[in-house]
Amino acid sequence: MDVVIAIDSLKGSLTSLEAGNAISDGIKKVFEDANVIVRPLADGGEGTVEALTLGMNGTLKHVSVTGPLGKPVDAVYGIMDKVSSGQKRTAVIEMSAAAGITLVEESERNPLVTTTYGVGELIVDAIRNGCHHFIIGIGGSATNDGGIGMLQALGFGFLDKDGRQIPYGAGGIESLDKITDEYVIPELKECTFRIACDVTNTLCGEQGCSAIFGPQKGATPSMIMQMDKWLRYYAALAREKYPTANMNHAGTGAAGGLGFAFLTFTNAVLESGIKIVLEETNLEEYIKEADIVITGEGRLDSQTVMGKAPIGVANIAKKYNKKVIAFSGCVTEDAVVCNEAGIDAFFPILRRVVSLPDAMDHDIAKSNMTKTVEQVFRLIKTLQ
Amino acid sequence: MDVVIAIDSLKGSLTSLEAGNAISDGIKKVFEDANVIVRPLADGGEGTVEALTLGMNGTLKHVSVTGPLGKPVDAVYGIMDKVSSGQKRTAVIEMSAAAGITLVEESERNPLVTTTYGVGELIVDAIRNGCHHFIIGIGGSATNDGGIGMLQALGFGFLDKDGRQIPYGAGGIESLDKITDEYVIPELKECTFRIACDVTNTLCGEQGCSAIFGPQKGATPSMIMQMDKWLRYYAALAREKYPTANMNHAGTGAAGGLGFAFLTFTNAVLESGIKIVLEETNLEEYIKEADIVITGEGRLDSQTVMGKAPIGVANIAKKYNKKVIAFSGCVTEDAVVCNEAGIDAFFPILRRVVSLPDAMDHDIAKSNMTKTVEQVFRLIKTLQ
Repeated sequence: MDVVIAIDSLKGSLTSLEAGNAISDGIKKVFEDANVIVRPLADGGEGTVEALTLGMNGTLKHVSVTGPLGKPVDAVYGIMDKVSSGQKRTAVIEMSAAAGITLVEESERNPLVTTTYGVGELIVDAIRNGCHHFIIGIGGSATNDGGIGMLQALGFGFLDKDGRQIPYGAGGIESLDKITDEYVIPELKECTFRIACDVTNTLCGEQGCSAIFGPQKGATPSMIMQMDKWLRYYAALAREKYPTANMNHAGTGAAGGLGFAFLTFTNAVLESGIKIVLEETNLEEYIKEADIVITGEGRLDSQTVMGKAPIGVANIAKKYNKKVIAFSGCVTEDAVVCNEAGIDAFFPILRRVVSLPDAMDHDIAKSNMTKTVEQVFRLIKTLQ
Repeated sequence: MDVVIAIDSLKGSLTSLEAGNAISDGIKKVFEDANVIVRPLADGGEGTVEALTLGMNGTLKHVSVTGPLGKPVDAVYGIMDKVSSGQKRTAVIEMSAAAGITLVEESERNPLVTTTYGVGELIVDAIRNGCHHFIIGIGGSATNDGGIGMLQALGFGFLDKDGRQIPYGAGGIESLDKITDEYVIPELKECTFRIACDVTNTLCGEQGCSAIFGPQKGATPSMIMQMDKWLRYYAALAREKYPTANMNHAGTGAAGGLGFAFLTFTNAVLESGIKIVLEETNLEEYIKEADIVITGEGRLDSQTVMGKAPIGVANIAKKYNKKVIAFSGCVTEDAVVCNEAGIDAFFPILRRVVSLPDAMDHDIAKSNMTKTVEQVFRLIKTLQ
């Protein structure tokens, strides 16, 4: 029996690989000789770096970079040698590691000053470590600087009238006069970026990043109007130098304009996180050889079918007519729609009435996962 | 697909039949045309009357009888026409309906006065309604009267020196002088009794009913010694009239000596509750024709394999090499031993983290059961 497992993390309980290994244990209790392959799964959001890096036998790298408020933060990103993107050594980065909202106390949140500079430092560090391909998750940002901080770290000049780099944060854009690229790190032009972006917001306007995401980052209404104006000027200036710059492109407003920065100044594509993860991990090649495909996530519900990771897995599996079983921490009343979306059967792993902290406890969740899977595979064995 | 369901009640949530019907609903969601038969299951304890009577298309009968303290109580028992015991109309009775410990406030518990008279009245009522076969569960008694109350209601004379019936309760036995049978209800000799008895205690002695069960019925140590002596005298007197009377027979101490009364004064056998229920419901005949057998109970654990109802079902199913799936309200860590005892796979029905009252709520449990079964049968369909 050939089984491929690709399950998203059960957030707060099990990482993608821990869940996958617990499932593998359950299968092996019934089919000792089963060929079980655990592949990482993530959606481009929290946990993507860990899942991909460890799941692809990469290395996690810890670096001190400039945090969102300009003070140093310890950030982690992953380096992987073997990925589907040709021979390119690949880095996987979550922007939130360097410029995330959770790095800023609520009282200190202020998009006028928060910067993506550290994101650029992570990219530079990865380039210096030989990476020329990047998978970048951009959820959870504290910033609205249009990605200028990141671009400055990469060597771009965002200069004021006196030829000095403008200050960090959206507030710095007010003094922007000129964009230069003569000091850009030379390897950048060889680098490719796949940006995991699940929002369609534009850089400016009513659906722009300032208006939509500004408030949660600490912006007042008057700040929002100012920032929107400054970003519009920034986009116009960028367009003079890069005619393809398009501030109305869907996703340019992601992560406070970081989407615009990647699209305009680097070889980047914005894609759904799931698509990137599924392709970069080559899951389809593994699924082709499987008898049974196993997926899942923390909670299976009607949102799951809206393009979340397990359905991405199910879609590939069904292309090859494979059986798909999902396991999850819990399921909601409406989870049955997952059956129509390619998950043949799904099983929550709860065994008895427990509190939420107990249910989410790492060891209990692991044991529950293994035991639930064991019974499902006992049923499969019985039916063979 | 032919499926036979025989699941014990999920006590506090679903009766045997409610659980069975919820399972049937889940199967039908996947296999519309499945031939699903729901059979009642019980272990001779609480819920046996309801499960058997309704599951066998019988009638529940409400009667006012003498309660354990001599005051009237409303009791219910079942009458069934079609059972495996030949052509005999059958009554199913729980002794606790007329003489149960839960009918007596804790402060009033006193085995010197509590009587089984009402149990005899239930039997008489059933005989008058044409019943000649009895299935009687004798768990949960408040009494230690050696079943004398029941026998008096059936017409036996348990007389003092002056020829008057002795008073209710173990205390009455002190004045016992003579046992007579000329006024016994005549149909009794044609009646057969299967007594569901899962204890092996004897009438008297260290393992006797007074010593072992006396305390929980309100007996003090001195009362225990007195009652033990009186019951010994009662057994000796009975033996003069009925030479087969054997107070050392296993189970004679069940229900405060009610086991002795049935064995000595009626055509009775003491058997495990499961055995009686499985035979009287003819489950084996249904299982023979099934593809899949479904069982379960409120909690599946290592105790389940110690002769509880689901294992009784599994044993029959495995005799015919049928697949056995169990569903339960919850499972414990050690439930995996059930797999070795004939349950091919088992599934707790919990779907998410909830409180115990919510988990046990009738509607929630019913919905959880149906949804869990649906997913299991979706898996079965996928594997076909």
